[in-house]
Amino acid sequence: MKFEIPEKMKAVVLEEYGKLGVTELPVPQPGPGEVLCKIKAVAICGSDPKMIDGHYADVHWPPYFPFVMGHEWAGQVVALGEGVTEFKVGDRVAGEAHKGCGNCANCMSGHYTVCLNYGKDGHDGGADKGHRHYGFYWQGANAEYNAYKVAALTLIPDNVSYEEASLCDTAGVALHGVELAGVTPGGTTVVFGPGPIGLCAMQEAKAMGAGRVIMIGRGRKLEIARKMGADICIDFEKEDPVARVLELTGGVGADEVMECSGANDSPAKACQLVKKTGAVALIANYRDDLEQVPLPLNKIVFNEIKIYGSKANPGVSRAVLKFLSDGSINGKGLITHTFPLDQYEAAVDVFQNRRDNCMKVVITPEAGEPGRFVED
Amino acid sequence: MKFEIPEKMKAVVLEEYGKLGVTELPVPQPGPGEVLCKIKAVAICGSDPKMIDGHYADVHWPPYFPFVMGHEWAGQVVALGEGVTEFKVGDRVAGEAHKGCGNCANCMSGHYTVCLNYGKDGHDGGADKGHRHYGFYWQGANAEYNAYKVAALTLIPDNVSYEEASLCDTAGVALHGVELAGVTPGGTTVVFGPGPIGLCAMQEAKAMGAGRVIMIGRGRKLEIARKMGADICIDFEKEDPVARVLELTGGVGADEVMECSGANDSPAKACQLVKKTGAVALIANYRDDLEQVPLPLNKIVFNEIKIYGSKANPGVSRAVLKFLSDGSINGKGLITHTFPLDQYEAAVDVFQNRRDNCMKVVITPEAGEPGRFVED
Amino acid sequence: MKFEIPEKMKAVVLEEYGKLGVTELPVPQPGPGEVLCKIKAVAICGSDPKMIDGHYADVHWPPYFPFVMGHEWAGQVVALGEGVTEFKVGDRVAGEAHKGCGNCANCMSGHYTVCLNYGKDGHDGGADKGHRHYGFYWQGANAEYNAYKVAALTLIPDNVSYEEASLCDTAGVALHGVELAGVTPGGTTVVFGPGPIGLCAMQEAKAMGAGRVIMIGRGRKLEIARKMGADICIDFEKEDPVARVLELTGGVGADEVMECSGANDSPAKACQLVKKTGAVALIANYRDDLEQVPLPLNKIVFNEIKIYGSKANPGVSRAVLKFLSDGSINGKGLITHTFPLDQYEAAVDVFQNRRDNCMKVVITPEAGEPGRFVED
Amino acid sequence: MKFEIPEKMKAVVLEEYGKLGVTELPVPQPGPGEVLCKIKAVAICGSDPKMIDGHYADVHWPPYFPFVMGHEWAGQVVALGEGVTEFKVGDRVAGEAHKGCGNCANCMSGHYTVCLNYGKDGHDGGADKGHRHYGFYWQGANAEYNAYKVAALTLIPDNVSYEEASLCDTAGVALHGVELAGVTPGGTTVVFGPGPIGLCAMQEAKAMGAGRVIMIGRGRKLEIARKMGADICIDFEKEDPVARVLELTGGVGADEVMECSGANDSPAKACQLVKKTGAVALIANYRDDLEQVPLPLNKIVFNEIKIYGSKANPGVSRAVLKFLSDGSINGKGLITHTFPLDQYEAAVDVFQNRRDNCMKVVITPEAGEPGRFVED
Repeated sequence: MKFEIPEKMKAVVLEEYGKLGVTELPVPQPGPGEVLCKIKAVAICGSDPKMIDGHYADVHWPPYFPFVMGHEWAGQVVALGEGVTEFKVGDRVAGEAHKGCGNCANCMSGHYTVCLNYGKDGHDGGADKGHRHYGFYWQGANAEYNAYKVAALTLIPDNVSYEEASLCDTAGVALHGVELAGVTPGGTTVVFGPGPIGLCAMQEAKAMGAGRVIMIGRGRKLEIARKMGADICIDFEKEDPVARVLELTGGVGADEVMECSGANDSPAKACQLVKKTGAVALIANYRDDLEQVPLPLNKIVFNEIKIYGSKANPGVSRAVLKFLSDGSINGKGLITHTFPLDQYEAAVDVFQNRRDNCMKVVITPEAGEPGRFVED
Repeated sequence: MKFEIPEKMKAVVLEEYGKLGVTELPVPQPGPGEVLCKIKAVAICGSDPKMIDGHYADVHWPPYFPFVMGHEWAGQVVALGEGVTEFKVGDRVAGEAHKGCGNCANCMSGHYTVCLNYGKDGHDGGADKGHRHYGFYWQGANAEYNAYKVAALTLIPDNVSYEEASLCDTAGVALHGVELAGVTPGGTTVVFGPGPIGLCAMQEAKAMGAGRVIMIGRGRKLEIARKMGADICIDFEKEDPVARVLELTGGVGADEVMECSGANDSPAKACQLVKKTGAVALIANYRDDLEQVPLPLNKIVFNEIKIYGSKANPGVSRAVLKFLSDGSINGKGLITHTFPLDQYEAAVDVFQNRRDNCMKVVITPEAGEPGRFVED
Repeated sequence: MKFEIPEKMKAVVLEEYGKLGVTELPVPQPGPGEVLCKIKAVAICGSDPKMIDGHYADVHWPPYFPFVMGHEWAGQVVALGEGVTEFKVGDRVAGEAHKGCGNCANCMSGHYTVCLNYGKDGHDGGADKGHRHYGFYWQGANAEYNAYKVAALTLIPDNVSYEEASLCDTAGVALHGVELAGVTPGGTTVVFGPGPIGLCAMQEAKAMGAGRVIMIGRGRKLEIARKMGADICIDFEKEDPVARVLELTGGVGADEVMECSGANDSPAKACQLVKKTGAVALIANYRDDLEQVPLPLNKIVFNEIKIYGSKANPGVSRAVLKFLSDGSINGKGLITHTFPLDQYEAAVDVFQNRRDNCMKVVITPEAGEPGRFVED
Repeated sequence: MKFEIPEKMKAVVLEEYGKLGVTELPVPQPGPGEVLCKIKAVAICGSDPKMIDGHYADVHWPPYFPFVMGHEWAGQVVALGEGVTEFKVGDRVAGEAHKGCGNCANCMSGHYTVCLNYGKDGHDGGADKGHRHYGFYWQGANAEYNAYKVAALTLIPDNVSYEEASLCDTAGVALHGVELAGVTPGGTTVVFGPGPIGLCAMQEAKAMGAGRVIMIGRGRKLEIARKMGADICIDFEKEDPVARVLELTGGVGADEVMECSGANDSPAKACQLVKKTGAVALIANYRDDLEQVPLPLNKIVFNEIKIYGSKANPGVSRAVLKFLSDGSINGKGLITHTFPLDQYEAAVDVFQNRRDNCMKVVITPEAGEPGRFVED
């Protein structure tokens, strides 16, 4: 298989905070250990609008302007860099945002999403330690092409579409947290927040042996959770989730909690409704820059609660692509809208403002028209 | 070996909140699976003055008046209840406060300090499920005798005195937390709070392979930590412990943190100075009834920090008695004062008000005069 | 609800090795912390014919004659002993064979199936430490009634029949091993041995997130594995399972192996086909009294393989009953025959000699006629 | 600091199986991410004489002739390759034999000593995936200089000599096994085999909280174990180690066993003398090519024993160098002989034939005369 690689490509760039543009850029050259990919699908992540708005200026996301964002993506290998044997031209692959340096203490112990050489990728003229954070600190997928280190890629099973595979990162973020907290076979798992990550966490917990999953949320998203298989749904505007979960568990509490809501009061509630010796995974971002996020420390101590911060999606891409393939995760059901690349700004608007019952929006650079991916 | 058992014994009782008395009570009869112990030493715990003052009224400590408190104790087996083969008369034993029911899901999975049948000990006329919480919810050791379930007892090595062995509970509370957070061989362990539990945690971390232990505290207690072997002492009134620990670790942070201070701002600082993927054990009580205890949730998420609530001392008595025996824990160095039983109130005053550079105060029911156990 | 309890009951007893009899015995009285159960279903275990034949004489199974065997059972609570609040009369319950003493180091750390007070149940006139091994060392379920400690019982979900619930022990033995080895989400799990335990392990691995389960066996039982959901079946008489699994995994090997065959050459094969850092659970008995069972130690070392011995079913009854309830485990599909109590000997003959494509045989003391529980 | 780097260096090479030679080779050039080191000390490993003798021909050690062996080494950084910021010229460093590719599933989950790209280092003209196995599959340290990837190096504490630091690999191999099996605080650890690895494991177990360490061996090496701090020594030629350990532990067995002897009957004995739920680490090579190595499988199953194969020394160099620095490991006591580089063959003879009570032999390329490093 052989592909014609043009010299120029269309790309969406963040020109400055709040300002997006569609432009033409050189197609990247794959270096040693890299492959060039034709981007087929890029999902918009909750962090993307925040980055556009300058919310991450303090952590230097993006590191420069104009910047190509986009990190939840799937595509096809169209050219190989030097020494690549892991993939061949034509392979269908899904990406991870994080590629660790491979040499620091954290990478060498398996924790590459907290690489100690974060950002040392040479883009600023310093030494390139091999770290990449695609779409955040290194050129991302909002374009027709991008070059990737092979360690950031996983083969897509045949029956999984590129659109579905672009959920690899989202579903992986959920799975890493689920693995940290663990799933008690036959037990009760609680998930806070029926957004894309929470809905993935819910489906993963079920696929990994949870006896029942209780989703806590509200409104239409809670309805989607119910349709996608939540055993019990608690609308926190209508009833107290702590009291209800304790009632449902005979006063014992949930075996584990996946906190995917990002609401500042959810972590405390999670500690109130989890069982003694239970585990809480934090799989969200919080606004602790704006207000205090208190936790019930005595409860944590008296009940021997374990809390796990969960960062991104190390080592889980194979698993989530398999779950997408065998139907454990309903990828189609999560995607509500698709847009072509040059309508990225409209896509962000739909996503950010939850218009039209939007759940997950996917950019399909090759397609010509926006669409509703799935009707319900 | 045979002991004369009198019918009556001297005991210190809490008559009502704030009011202690010395009285005469019947010597308890050891039931099936119990032994009667002559109490030789009882250490005063930080929770004892609080219980006297009514701080625990909401959790029903004590459950009735008059009540015999005291849960950090050592003594000698003087009579066996029915079916006891684990101990013989004359054995020297140290006690744990917690005896689980043995039949609930938590006890059956090894977590007996969070027994689901807490308090179901029959004292209120309900079914006796076998749970005991000696000195908190069931008659304790501030007396000449008490009867104990064999599961709450551990043999004392020959070279450990009763006074030292009365630290079994304190040192065990520390060790359980240390085990939950783990000790990185050759690594950097931080301990907040150079009180008795923190000083034990410090010594245990060193005995379990820590490369260096950094103690954070202030004043005279910090000096004691230095004398007892802390590699580095940080006076938080004089320098910022977060900045200092990061400096000492090349910006990486401590491998694990044992939070033994109970200060409401320490858990947040612990999260700030622990490394990515590091662990924080909470081995203290907090005032979250009075004020909010905020934690830096985004830091916890971004750095994959693990937080472990640690409740009491399950399964560690053999280990801490061994550590006391081989000198890994300097028991004598922790005990500053001894008092006879009938001077319990004076002992509590010295302990609670940290008079006379007091660290740990031990009641020795058989002795006639108060003393300084160890000079320094 | 109230039940008439007769004074006498029908029971099958082992009168001496090789000799079974049907007799009348007193209905046991439930002691403190015990309930009396009407036995509704007892499954025959692979160890039962061996015990009858004297294979376990060296470990004193049974400890005396005549002895009531039977340990995989389900039934109904008909009377409560003193102090019982965990169950009420009328409750439907499934049993575990093991009840630990609750007080030894192993029980107190959650490992009650390796209780250090094994057999100290007072039946020989010694002290009763509270240990029970029902059907092996203490009177079992091959009768109309038996008394059980509450810790050995778990409520049966409404939609699970007594016959299915009698598989609680078998499915639990499988699950404990599966939990020890772990299940890699989306990964490849290999199961050796499509007998009842292996078929449960296979279904449990799938319910807990395995991407595919490969069953290794032969003949009709392998066919049943295929029907019950094994993704790939390898007939070891027709092809080399090691070569095949390596081929199926691109040379990497299986993520984990559940060795349920008890064949002496299977553990070595398991080590050959598991991936580097993979895990092998041993969930079977071997004939190492008769011949050597060699393992490839250098392979284990070079590949960092982990091997877990798995003993019985601690702490998993709730999970397997949930799996039976939600269809994760096909209980009906495992049971091929039922017999009334007085045809126990015929039932053992069918089971032991695998007559009539027998898989699992269940005794139903209340029924009058033998039957095929499930047609296929 | 700046060093003159010559163009040629002295090196010991394996010219063919059984034939060593001293020759002159080009000094290697450090590539990107590599540093050039002046070799100061190389310890002879038990695998070195075997490699010389052709014992590892089937695994292609060495991969070509002539080959520079040597993998337990320490030295000084004298030149930096492109992009190196982790070290500076003049740094004192100790080496690991294994450098993983950093990109395979095993490396990315922290298991770089079982890298899936083993040997794909480009020396044969294939793609260089970045894997190195210095001294086995890639040029080693038996020379005046060698170039190393930075990930294979760790800074040496100031008070540790190069000779002691050359034990980093040996002590690390021991520590990895000790970490896999774990050390029970205050418990009983058994070590089989008082060779260099076993003596390190013994000292590490003590440094990590073991209450006592029992060494099993014989003769003079057992005496050395006693001198270096073994609490109890069992001469297996004079008494049965299984019976003795059970007696010493009240019939319960050891908490964990480190099998460092490589004797084919030791793993089975380890399983016989470890406690129920205990762990056995295999930290040795066995002769399973020559004879069967049987294990007591039923014992493993009935007692829930865990067996961990341990491969090399991932992620432990910092810890063992700290242990060498603070005296937890007595490095000087392990080194009995030193030889200059050109007397390598004599050094191997002393080591292999255990002449002159030899324990560990270190080559010091800069020194002129052989010596006894430590008198005892």
